[in-house]
Amino acid sequence: MDYAKESLRLHGEWKGKIEVVTRVPAENKDDLSLAYTPGVAQPCLEIQKDVNKSYDLTRRWNMCLVVTDGSAILGLGNIGPEAGMPVMEGKCALFKAFGDVDAFPLCIKSNDVDEIVNTIYLISGSFGGVNLEDISAPRCFEIEKKLKEKCDIPIFHDDQHGTAIVVSAGLTNALRLVGKKFAEAKVVINGAGSAGISICKLLLELGIGDVVMVDRKGILAPGEEWMNPAQKEIAEKTNKEQLHGDLKAAMKGRDIFVGVSAPNIVTAEMVGTMADDAIVFAMANPTPEIMPDEARKGGARVIATGRSDFPNQINNVLVFPGVFRGAFDVRASDINEEMKIAAAKAIAELISDEELSEDNIIPKAFDKRVGPAVAKAVAEAARKTGVARK
Amino acid sequence: MDYAKESLRLHGEWKGKIEVVTRVPAENKDDLSLAYTPGVAQPCLEIQKDVNKSYDLTRRWNMCLVVTDGSAILGLGNIGPEAGMPVMEGKCALFKAFGDVDAFPLCIKSNDVDEIVNTIYLISGSFGGVNLEDISAPRCFEIEKKLKEKCDIPIFHDDQHGTAIVVSAGLTNALRLVGKKFAEAKVVINGAGSAGISICKLLLELGIGDVVMVDRKGILAPGEEWMNPAQKEIAEKTNKEQLHGDLKAAMKGRDIFVGVSAPNIVTAEMVGTMADDAIVFAMANPTPEIMPDEARKGGARVIATGRSDFPNQINNVLVFPGVFRGAFDVRASDINEEMKIAAAKAIAELISDEELSEDNIIPKAFDKRVGPAVAKAVAEAARKTGVARK
Repeated sequence: MDYAKESLRLHGEWKGKIEVVTRVPAENKDDLSLAYTPGVAQPCLEIQKDVNKSYDLTRRWNMCLVVTDGSAILGLGNIGPEAGMPVMEGKCALFKAFGDVDAFPLCIKSNDVDEIVNTIYLISGSFGGVNLEDISAPRCFEIEKKLKEKCDIPIFHDDQHGTAIVVSAGLTNALRLVGKKFAEAKVVINGAGSAGISICKLLLELGIGDVVMVDRKGILAPGEEWMNPAQKEIAEKTNKEQLHGDLKAAMKGRDIFVGVSAPNIVTAEMVGTMADDAIVFAMANPTPEIMPDEARKGGARVIATGRSDFPNQINNVLVFPGVFRGAFDVRASDINEEMKIAAAKAIAELISDEELSEDNIIPKAFDKRVGPAVAKAVAEAARKTGVARK
Repeated sequence: MDYAKESLRLHGEWKGKIEVVTRVPAENKDDLSLAYTPGVAQPCLEIQKDVNKSYDLTRRWNMCLVVTDGSAILGLGNIGPEAGMPVMEGKCALFKAFGDVDAFPLCIKSNDVDEIVNTIYLISGSFGGVNLEDISAPRCFEIEKKLKEKCDIPIFHDDQHGTAIVVSAGLTNALRLVGKKFAEAKVVINGAGSAGISICKLLLELGIGDVVMVDRKGILAPGEEWMNPAQKEIAEKTNKEQLHGDLKAAMKGRDIFVGVSAPNIVTAEMVGTMADDAIVFAMANPTPEIMPDEARKGGARVIATGRSDFPNQINNVLVFPGVFRGAFDVRASDINEEMKIAAAKAIAELISDEELSEDNIIPKAFDKRVGPAVAKAVAEAARKTGVARK
C-alpha cells in the first residue's frame, strides 16, 4: 500500500481523527439545569474549596494534553505548529484506543522555551497530565525540566522517555534470547539527541554494562569540544573504555547497536566487527541505519527497526497509552524513573519464553494486552515511590 | 428537585461531561500506518504547504475553544480557574448537543489581560473559533478586542454577545406581541457591565428608539464622573432625554425593562410607572430583579427571566451552538454584527404568529430546531458580509 497517498486521502475523509463528545443528556429542562445552570454552581463551589475535587467532578482525571510547537515533527523537522496537528491527533487517537485515555491535541505558535513553558503551565489546571511531542533538542530538555518544576501533574516527553522505555524492553528480551547478561552488555548508541540520550540514561539506570554514544562528529568523550551541554553531561557517565573516533570505531566488539540517527550509515561490514550474537536496533524512520537483510549478512542475530513491515517493530505506542493510564489510575503527581523501568519490564514480560524468538522479541504495536499490563506496573511503581495521590 | 444537591451527585457519577474519542480504527498494522506513522507525514506536509489545509485534514474545522480565567463564573465571582471547569465542560456538552460543534474546555491560571490574550493566541492554530466565557469586565472587552486583532478565527465572548442576541430575539417578539414598533420603543437596561453594554449596543444596531442604562451608581449620562471607559463610551450613544438619577427615575414611562443586575431591586410600584403593556426581562440569576408575579401585579404584560421554572426563559444556549455551527459551516474568519443580528432574527422567527403569546415569546432552551435555524441564518450573513472562507 502507498501509505502516503492513502493516508492523505483518508485524512480528507475522516476530517479529524478525534472528536469531543458529550457524556450527559440534554433533552429537557432538568437535564440542562443539572449539567449547566443553575445546578452546576455546586460542583464549582466544591472545587473552589478543594482544587483536588477537580479530579472527581470534571474530566481532568482522564485528560492528557498532547502538545507540540511543530519544531521536530516526525523526521520532517520544523514544519510549523498547524502542520504538526495530524501527528498530535493521531497520538490522541492511539491514547484512546490503547489506554482509554482522553487526549487533546494542541500546537503552540512559538519556539521560545519560556513562552512554551508558560503557555502549558497556564492551561495545566484542565489536565491530569502533559505529553510533550516532537519538540526539538536541546529545547525539549529545558521545557520538560521547567514544566516539571512548575506543575503538579505528570510531564512526559514521549520522544525521550517513550522511546527509552520501548527500546529498553526490546533490548531486555534480545539479551534474554541470546543469553547475555544486562550488566555485561556493551552498547553503542548512534544519535546523541533527545531520544539517544534518554535511551542511554534509562539503560544505565537498568544497570547496563557500558554505553558508548556517537553523534555526527564522533564518539562522545570528556574533552571533546563540539559537544552540547546535554552531551557533555552524558559523556561523563558513559564510554568506560575512553574511546575516541567515529561510529566504525565505536561499533567494534559491541553487543548492541542502537540507532536513532540517519538512513543507511551502517554497513554489513561494520556489523561484522561487533561481538557474536550481535543485536541491531536500527530505528531511523522511514529508512533504517541498515536494512535488516544487510544487518543479517553482517552477522546480526536479533534485528529490530521502527517499521511495521519488518519483525520487531520498536514503537512508542506500546508505551504512552499504558504509562498515562497507570499514572491517571492512581492520580500520580509525576512519571518517575521507577515507573518508566516498570513499564519497560512489563512490556518485555509479555513475551513468554516459548514465544521469544529472533523475530519476536516485543509485542506487536496493536496488541491490546500491552496497555493494561503497562498501566498496572506503572500504577504499582507510583504507589511504591510515593507519587500516587489516590 | 434540589438542583444543587442532585447536580453535585451527578457530577461525581459522570466523572466529566465531555470525552475525547477517536474517529479512526486502530486494529492492525495498516490502521496504525495510515492514522499515524509513516502515512501521517503526508497530511502534515500538505498543511506545511498551505495552512488552510488544516481545516480539511484535522478536526480544526469543527473545534471550538471554550475558555475562562475563572474570574466571573456564573454569579459566583472569581472562584479560580479549576473551579470554573464544570461550567466550561457544561458549555462544551451543550455545544455538541445543540450545534454538533466539538468544543474543548480550558481554564487559564492568570487574570492578566496580555497573558490571557497571548496564551489563547499561541494555541489558536488548533481551533476553528474561540468562545470566551465568564471573564470579568472590563478585562473581557480588552481581551476580546486584542484577540480579534491577532487571530484569524472567530472570537466570541458569549456573556456579551450571546446574551445580547437572545435578549434581542425575545424583545423582538415581545414588541411584536404588544404591537409596538422597535424604532419607537424606549428601554431601560439595569446593569452596565459586559452583558448590559453588549445588549445595549445590539439594540441600538437593531434601531431601537432609545436606551437608558443604569448602574449601581445611577443613570449613565455624559458628565457622570464615576463611569468606567466602557460606560462613558456607551453613555454618548444612549439616554436621548438626558436623564439623571436612579433606577426608579429611569423606569418611568419606559416600554421595556432589561435587568442583568441583582436580585429583588425592582418593585411592582416601579413597574407601575412604566408605559402601558410594559415588557420586563428580569434576568438576574438565580433570583430575578423582580419575581414574575410581582411584575404582573405592577402591570407588566410580558415577563421573561433567566430561569427555566418560569415561562420565557432567556437562555444563551439558544445562541452559541447555532452561531458557531453557522460560522464553522462557512469557515468564517469572524462573527460580525450582521451575523449576530441574523441569529437574533432567526430565533425570533421560530415563534409563529399563532404560537406567540405572553407566555411564549421565545423557543425553549432544549428546542432542537433552534441550532440549525440560527446556523443557517448566521452562515448566510457571513457569506453576504464577505467573512465566509468557503
